[in-house]
Amino acid sequence: MGRPRVVIIGGGFGGLNAARALARPDLEVLLIDRTNHHLFQPLLYQVATTSLAPSDVTAPIRWILRRQKNVTTLLGTVETIDRRNRSIRVVGEGDPIHYDYLIVAPGTRHAYFGHPEWERWAPGLKSVEDARRIRKRFLLAFERAEWEDDPVARQALLTYVIVGGGPTGVELAGVLPEMCAVAFRPDFRRIDTSTVRVILVEGGPRILPAFPPELSQRAHDDLVQMGVEVRTNAIVTHIDEDGVQIGDERIRSQSVFWAAGNAASPLLKTLDVPLDGAGRAIVGPELTVPDDPRVFVIGDAATVRDVRGHEVPAVAPAATQMGVHAARNIFAQLAGEPMHPFRYFNKGDLATIGRHKAVATFFDGKLQFAGHLAWFIWLFVHVMFLVGFRNRVSVLTQWAYNYLFFERGVRLITETEDASMSRHPAKTGKTGEYEAPSAG
Amino acid sequence: MGRPRVVIIGGGFGGLNAARALARPDLEVLLIDRTNHHLFQPLLYQVATTSLAPSDVTAPIRWILRRQKNVTTLLGTVETIDRRNRSIRVVGEGDPIHYDYLIVAPGTRHAYFGHPEWERWAPGLKSVEDARRIRKRFLLAFERAEWEDDPVARQALLTYVIVGGGPTGVELAGVLPEMCAVAFRPDFRRIDTSTVRVILVEGGPRILPAFPPELSQRAHDDLVQMGVEVRTNAIVTHIDEDGVQIGDERIRSQSVFWAAGNAASPLLKTLDVPLDGAGRAIVGPELTVPDDPRVFVIGDAATVRDVRGHEVPAVAPAATQMGVHAARNIFAQLAGEPMHPFRYFNKGDLATIGRHKAVATFFDGKLQFAGHLAWFIWLFVHVMFLVGFRNRVSVLTQWAYNYLFFERGVRLITETEDASMSRHPAKTGKTGEYEAPSAG
Repeated sequence: MGRPRVVIIGGGFGGLNAARALARPDLEVLLIDRTNHHLFQPLLYQVATTSLAPSDVTAPIRWILRRQKNVTTLLGTVETIDRRNRSIRVVGEGDPIHYDYLIVAPGTRHAYFGHPEWERWAPGLKSVEDARRIRKRFLLAFERAEWEDDPVARQALLTYVIVGGGPTGVELAGVLPEMCAVAFRPDFRRIDTSTVRVILVEGGPRILPAFPPELSQRAHDDLVQMGVEVRTNAIVTHIDEDGVQIGDERIRSQSVFWAAGNAASPLLKTLDVPLDGAGRAIVGPELTVPDDPRVFVIGDAATVRDVRGHEVPAVAPAATQMGVHAARNIFAQLAGEPMHPFRYFNKGDLATIGRHKAVATFFDGKLQFAGHLAWFIWLFVHVMFLVGFRNRVSVLTQWAYNYLFFERGVRLITETEDASMSRHPAKTGKTGEYEAPSAG
Repeated sequence: MGRPRVVIIGGGFGGLNAARALARPDLEVLLIDRTNHHLFQPLLYQVATTSLAPSDVTAPIRWILRRQKNVTTLLGTVETIDRRNRSIRVVGEGDPIHYDYLIVAPGTRHAYFGHPEWERWAPGLKSVEDARRIRKRFLLAFERAEWEDDPVARQALLTYVIVGGGPTGVELAGVLPEMCAVAFRPDFRRIDTSTVRVILVEGGPRILPAFPPELSQRAHDDLVQMGVEVRTNAIVTHIDEDGVQIGDERIRSQSVFWAAGNAASPLLKTLDVPLDGAGRAIVGPELTVPDDPRVFVIGDAATVRDVRGHEVPAVAPAATQMGVHAARNIFAQLAGEPMHPFRYFNKGDLATIGRHKAVATFFDGKLQFAGHLAWFIWLFVHVMFLVGFRNRVSVLTQWAYNYLFFERGVRLITETEDASMSRHPAKTGKTGEYEAPSAG
């Protein structure tokens, strides 16, 4: 009999840190991910908003684990989990892959509150592809606005609606005003980029609900001061190609972004265990599914109350800790010892709000920061935890550049085959001819 | 009557430098490109081979021209040129765009010697999308090889064929051996990345035919020493999903790249002027089409003999010089003066061959360099001429990193929907089950 094999599904914060914690030569680890890269999701909004390149926030999983010889990496999509036979099936592969222990960490996708048709008009931000799509959409809106003569249509192109007031929504909303009004201003001849409207829509009573109320208020005030229209208690009832409906109000916008609501991976349904309303597996404090100590579910895919009865939040540090904990509980089982219950250590919460503004809370809210100091903490933490030397240098260089020159460097529009911008051409003068803008 | 309007089609080296040279407030300039970015094509092969990110070799055209207020930039595809009415048509736009002067600089696409069906199996390298496609294809080949049990199929996955021995082909071929054998080696568990075969196929008697014969020989020897199989006088007669046919020889390969043969943009056909065999417009030494001094064709889209009767090569410096020259001849016409014939100044030719090897020739071959010194010249020239401060810093950082650590940073595989890697799964042992590689 060979070494016990641990199969890990997903190379995000949970899966990757589980693999690292399983660095023992008497174990064989197989990590499967749909992509070839680990994604540093906390900075993905900076790809969507042209500050960073996709390669700055990703690193090949193989490369991260290159020195850990007991890990093999496979690029593939897991289709089903068969707990009875202790195996999984990968799309396109004939034979099932056996496991002795399984760590399920597939993350989440966006959920549109029962309106999957909204996704087309309001892309979310989970993958590198999502970030490229959002970047392209909002750069194209500017390109189209530059050639749009009708002021109402032009304003619709220059109106950005962000649905969801969590950290991602706040970060997106906080970046846009300065970027549009300052960085993009010299590039356009007809439109005044400072006429851009940025609207942040939150269904609950306050933005950043995971933070203490004072910090929510601070973030709210900072955003308003930057020119963002913040709408709380505002429920989106409809989204289509022309914009967003919020109760009686119709907001015309060609650029709606979704940062609200997650749903777990459909893979979890094949686990045959109880799921919560968002489709996440309900696991015990040992992070295993009921009555099957060989199967762990971690990260955003799990609903779990830790040893103190606290609900573990769906954030990167929690996923990291769960990955390490799952590895330890596998070691415990191999040693014939009882498993340990998970205890989430909340190192703190951070959210940034545009140029050198942020909010931070540590030790369960006992320590709070806002403004410059919080922003420097944010900067430090995010560069520290980026995987890979190359990324760190590149990210620091680009941030320094953006900061000093108010520039946005990564403004590639590619795959424009679906670019509808040409359908909104500049209109004509009396001659029936294209009239170029006057330039001075 | 307004200011005279110059319309420029294409934001490559020719079009961009024409726009810059036309910085006069009494002129209105409209630059139209299918993409929103200028591409620094000489470094595109480094995107294809994971050294640089797409954003390192591109810069938004709007941003490059942001301070030149007489230029307006439009993202759009020009469909037809109507010289009789002095106007052009943009795809999806209703009304034609009038010009007083027109500079046509749409560049080229690959040509497959009458075999357009080869493109599917042998992508070329002209755009950022091309580079991403090649990068993805060759990273996926490794992923598939890692899980391929059949040695013949595995070798086909690890065999790279590059068709075309010009600078692009030589640069691609020169990068691959070290990258595969050194940079990727620690990442894989089953395959030995030093078993990669790289084959460079050139139809003519020597590679780098634009260089002096001694430098061709030097580049040839350097490549062979690095492990590249160089085939000269080798004509590709067939390409399909399984590989390449060269005369009687069949080379099995899943990764064929095309760096041979260009064809001009189909837009040139609408000019109604004589074209050469590659579809390029034949223009006089003033760079205008016959009998129409308002229409210039420059860059790779033109065939031209300069004032000395020398054929102008299809290289970036020639396009740059032609762009500036076209602008000067417009000034001459506006001043009622005769136009000047173009004189190509060959500053020199450079090609790099892997890690600190290159060949360089200056002053029409009077001065020649090879090896380290040529490589440093190459490095200096390419960073100098990159547009945009951010790119330069980022490129230098990444090169330093790659150079010092033998690493390849930008290894993103995205849009894997067509990824056929899962169709080549690891095969099974007797149990009919997936057998993971042993690891130590």
